[in-house]
Amino acid sequence: MRVATIHAPGDIRLEERPRPEISAPTDAVVKITAGCICGSDLWPYRGESPITAGSTIGHELVGVVEEVGSEVSSFAAGDFVIAPFCTCDNTCPHCRNGAHSACVNGGVITGGQGEYALVTQAEGSLVKTAAAPDPEMIPSLLTLADVFPTGWHCAVSAGVGKGDTVVVVGDGAVGLCGVLAAVQMGAKRVVAMSRHQPRQEIARTFGATHVVAERGKEGAAVIKELTDGVGADAVLECVGTHDAMRQAFAVARPGSTVGFVGVPHGVNVPVGRMFGKNIGLAGGVAPVRRYLPELLDLVTSGAVNPGLVFDTVMPLADVAEGYRAMDRRTAIKVLLQP
Amino acid sequence: MRVATIHAPGDIRLEERPRPEISAPTDAVVKITAGCICGSDLWPYRGESPITAGSTIGHELVGVVEEVGSEVSSFAAGDFVIAPFCTCDNTCPHCRNGAHSACVNGGVITGGQGEYALVTQAEGSLVKTAAAPDPEMIPSLLTLADVFPTGWHCAVSAGVGKGDTVVVVGDGAVGLCGVLAAVQMGAKRVVAMSRHQPRQEIARTFGATHVVAERGKEGAAVIKELTDGVGADAVLECVGTHDAMRQAFAVARPGSTVGFVGVPHGVNVPVGRMFGKNIGLAGGVAPVRRYLPELLDLVTSGAVNPGLVFDTVMPLADVAEGYRAMDRRTAIKVLLQP
Repeated sequence: MRVATIHAPGDIRLEERPRPEISAPTDAVVKITAGCICGSDLWPYRGESPITAGSTIGHELVGVVEEVGSEVSSFAAGDFVIAPFCTCDNTCPHCRNGAHSACVNGGVITGGQGEYALVTQAEGSLVKTAAAPDPEMIPSLLTLADVFPTGWHCAVSAGVGKGDTVVVVGDGAVGLCGVLAAVQMGAKRVVAMSRHQPRQEIARTFGATHVVAERGKEGAAVIKELTDGVGADAVLECVGTHDAMRQAFAVARPGSTVGFVGVPHGVNVPVGRMFGKNIGLAGGVAPVRRYLPELLDLVTSGAVNPGLVFDTVMPLADVAEGYRAMDRRTAIKVLLQP
Repeated sequence: MRVATIHAPGDIRLEERPRPEISAPTDAVVKITAGCICGSDLWPYRGESPITAGSTIGHELVGVVEEVGSEVSSFAAGDFVIAPFCTCDNTCPHCRNGAHSACVNGGVITGGQGEYALVTQAEGSLVKTAAAPDPEMIPSLLTLADVFPTGWHCAVSAGVGKGDTVVVVGDGAVGLCGVLAAVQMGAKRVVAMSRHQPRQEIARTFGATHVVAERGKEGAAVIKELTDGVGADAVLECVGTHDAMRQAFAVARPGSTVGFVGVPHGVNVPVGRMFGKNIGLAGGVAPVRRYLPELLDLVTSGAVNPGLVFDTVMPLADVAEGYRAMDRRTAIKVLLQP
């Protein structure tokens, strides 16, 4: 089968590899209907995370079950499934506590930018749709593998509540999904900090009431004015850089929480400001499985359309071009069709 | 009047200064019945925070109202009051949101180790007792000015709930009050990390179910064993050093929150661990006024006796000796009688 591999920064190749096989009774093999490129895939692509040359890449996928191990009873060949990027048994103490991304039997999907993927802990991880979905539903279903639950987790972690003023730092696909999540949770005002017109448009479509193009001190001043000097009730940090974290704390009101879901790179947490202003920090790797039933309902009912974050669709053969487009920010998020 | 002053690291003096006077209509002057030395006073005493030579020191006090400004209507001369160490108007957006320590008109008491103190924003800050309290109640009432609400805030920030296993890092007066708070909030198991026998005893009196003398990796291993490998449901970091913060994150279960109330000194927040394990960090300067009505009830009803943290009582004249005793850890917390 064909699958994307990474060999060095900037070096993505589509290679022929053996189709994954069931090796544990808890495994499933899924034939990928759609995969995609994640903002976090850009860290190794840019040489900012370590690379094992030749390793497969991609952790987001939806598809059709091809084969299951002997201990997988809820899924069978032919089921259309969403595979959370972090797998889990859904029964361990961490899963029962809602921290599925820390499952004692958990792992992370790889090879999601390919034709077939192995899903470990399939019984606990996978969620299936009632029937084979309409093709136009595929992008939104694909967001359930990572990006939408990750934006949702950021909003949950930040404690977004009804009537809140919420600021979202980061206009990537996760940030946009954070906007969508905050709106769904009843926020009154959702401010997208974005200076890119196509992303601003999606943010508004997702329900952002304000777009702030300014950054740094100027951006903080705009938020302060908007909130009568008080600051935001909840802030979603959806990037993972030091500047984004700094921005988030600069606009958070005393007593609020900054949610964070971008893999931290070079972040120095401003603990003095946290202490002096009683601003909390919470979040991390999204426990995708925890949110899946609820978010799948939102998607299948048509209440939300997170698939809009895919502004670019390419055949799997063009995966290297997809990385280039996301790296240059000419694409927000690239959907890959095997 | 006599009041403690600090001139340099280790140099505490009792000096004669003018009695504070009403300078704003929101002020009150309180004749101090009892003051005390805070763990945070040791930072400048040890030269680890900046010092303005000759400045008064001490921010915890209870006493009797001597005089009030024209806009203070709820208090009058003769009232016995608790003065929160951070003052507040109790009406601004931050106060209404429970973040009283960020009050737009707030300040911090100084001169609490003396005979009289000025309390700004007296109407919003002070809380009075129904009648003049019995002398044996004074120590517990004095804890309401800072140390008990600070321990309480740590437990609130850490999200302590019924049935939880809670670990308290730090066996100073704040940590001990954190134990007391966690027990009151219904924690099932409260682990005090302490290697000092007198402090261990108070922790047990306050309801700690376990005492762990080990620190670092050994301490974390004990907690891990105690929790079947899961970790604590909530952790209270009551010191403010890097080692204490590290200890707290080492014992916190995925998805939990570390509460922190010790002024951070040299703390480097482990953001990678926070992200990977979904462990939050919340807390800061305690919004004392927010908790005062509830905690005053707990104290006056006899439900709790936080005054036990005062293992040493001295006349104000011996304030310099009090600092030496706390610095050497021969006293847990020193109560000063003017």
